[in-house]
Amino acid sequence: MELSRREIALLRSLSTRTGRKKSGCCRCEGIRAVRELFANYPERVCFIAIREDLGIVPDYPEELQRIVPVKLFSELSDTVSSQGIIAAACIPDNASGKIIGDFVVALDQLGDPGNFGTIARSLRAAGQKELWYTKGSIDPWGDKAIRSGMGVQFGLNMRRFDSLEQLTSSGTSLGIKNVFIADPHHGENCFNCPDLFDHSIIVIGGEPNGVMGWCPDARKVIIPMPGRYESINAAQAATVLIFESVRRKMI
Amino acid sequence: MELSRREIALLRSLSTRTGRKKSGCCRCEGIRAVRELFANYPERVCFIAIREDLGIVPDYPEELQRIVPVKLFSELSDTVSSQGIIAAACIPDNASGKIIGDFVVALDQLGDPGNFGTIARSLRAAGQKELWYTKGSIDPWGDKAIRSGMGVQFGLNMRRFDSLEQLTSSGTSLGIKNVFIADPHHGENCFNCPDLFDHSIIVIGGEPNGVMGWCPDARKVIIPMPGRYESINAAQAATVLIFESVRRKMI
Repeated sequence: MELSRREIALLRSLSTRTGRKKSGCCRCEGIRAVRELFANYPERVCFIAIREDLGIVPDYPEELQRIVPVKLFSELSDTVSSQGIIAAACIPDNASGKIIGDFVVALDQLGDPGNFGTIARSLRAAGQKELWYTKGSIDPWGDKAIRSGMGVQFGLNMRRFDSLEQLTSSGTSLGIKNVFIADPHHGENCFNCPDLFDHSIIVIGGEPNGVMGWCPDARKVIIPMPGRYESINAAQAATVLIFESVRRKMI
Repeated sequence: MELSRREIALLRSLSTRTGRKKSGCCRCEGIRAVRELFANYPERVCFIAIREDLGIVPDYPEELQRIVPVKLFSELSDTVSSQGIIAAACIPDNASGKIIGDFVVALDQLGDPGNFGTIARSLRAAGQKELWYTKGSIDPWGDKAIRSGMGVQFGLNMRRFDSLEQLTSSGTSLGIKNVFIADPHHGENCFNCPDLFDHSIIVIGGEPNGVMGWCPDARKVIIPMPGRYESINAAQAATVLIFESVRRKMI
């Protein structure tokens, strides 16, 4: 099947936040990202645009596939060297419902899509599910975020809140016992803190300001740095903390 | 003082590998990178170009500073929004000499400057010194690598080798006891492996191929991933391993 005019218009509109808001859908480009999407939310896939030269792809139902001429595809693609596959999908809504896994990672006004993608992938690799974020963070359903996260957001429970205060109070009502803020200067040692992953929210701030939201009851947690040089970024800090949870499960 | 014609030509030439090779110098752009350079190798700084509107900077000796008109500076700068400071410096030569610290991180054909910078900053934050790399890796003294590493390479012992075989045999002759290769599929659990940081080289491969070099005697080490999804990249893997060394020192 070919792309209809409406589908072309939809794909184009999904590159903007306004377009995504209007339709409740997002674009998901790349082999790995589409695979992750389809594995987690097959029912949410509207259609999959496939570049003509690739032909029908065996991984997906034929009725979802739209063969797109090379020229039109490159106009629709967000990347310079495209892998030839873009899906349109309804954005999953995980805003409420039980917390799955041991802890929540919360991003407070994290603006960088590269950092966002790294954190999402670390969390997914660690087998955790809950990635929450506040207003002012990058939109996880934008093209860049989906690319940098390689679509792992489709396997996570992404929840958006207007403020950190709202985020933590939502957490508390869902059974969260501790809120930790990753701090570069002081706090409890992350390698010694016994309840760091016990029904906790771990808040990671954007750079260069760190956590900006109001969160008076939170405990601070620090990653010790013997090099006395605060050079690691939000994504590195989050990766260290997330894999500390893996380590504790392994021993 | 103003930039001489020779100094302008030198700065321009240092954006290419050929230019760096010819003069043995590199460019170091940005406030933090120049600070790191000057703190570690003051004697290696040839001069510091400072954009006119900033005036003389109190952090550095006046005789090193060259005031550069805004227009010329933006021509010389490698970045879109420059911080107004670029140093020219002789590239440190750490190719031989004792190994400092507990272990070596070795990059095998790591081509991505972002990953390189992340790994260098993790290592620096962990208080380690030795970052080795093989031919085929990004040049750590190029503009992008210095920017992504925020100049931390000036605080590390960077050693280049033609092959992984040469790298490991050099290590052995300097007292290295173990060579580990970070592997995404199998190996000893990094959180349980007792001698992971005991006079070791930990080899991190570039993506997507992983470690390519010849290294038959190496042990493999794996970061456990309960999420059963190999989505973390070389820089994330290196960060997890490097901070596991910090954790062991802290407990």
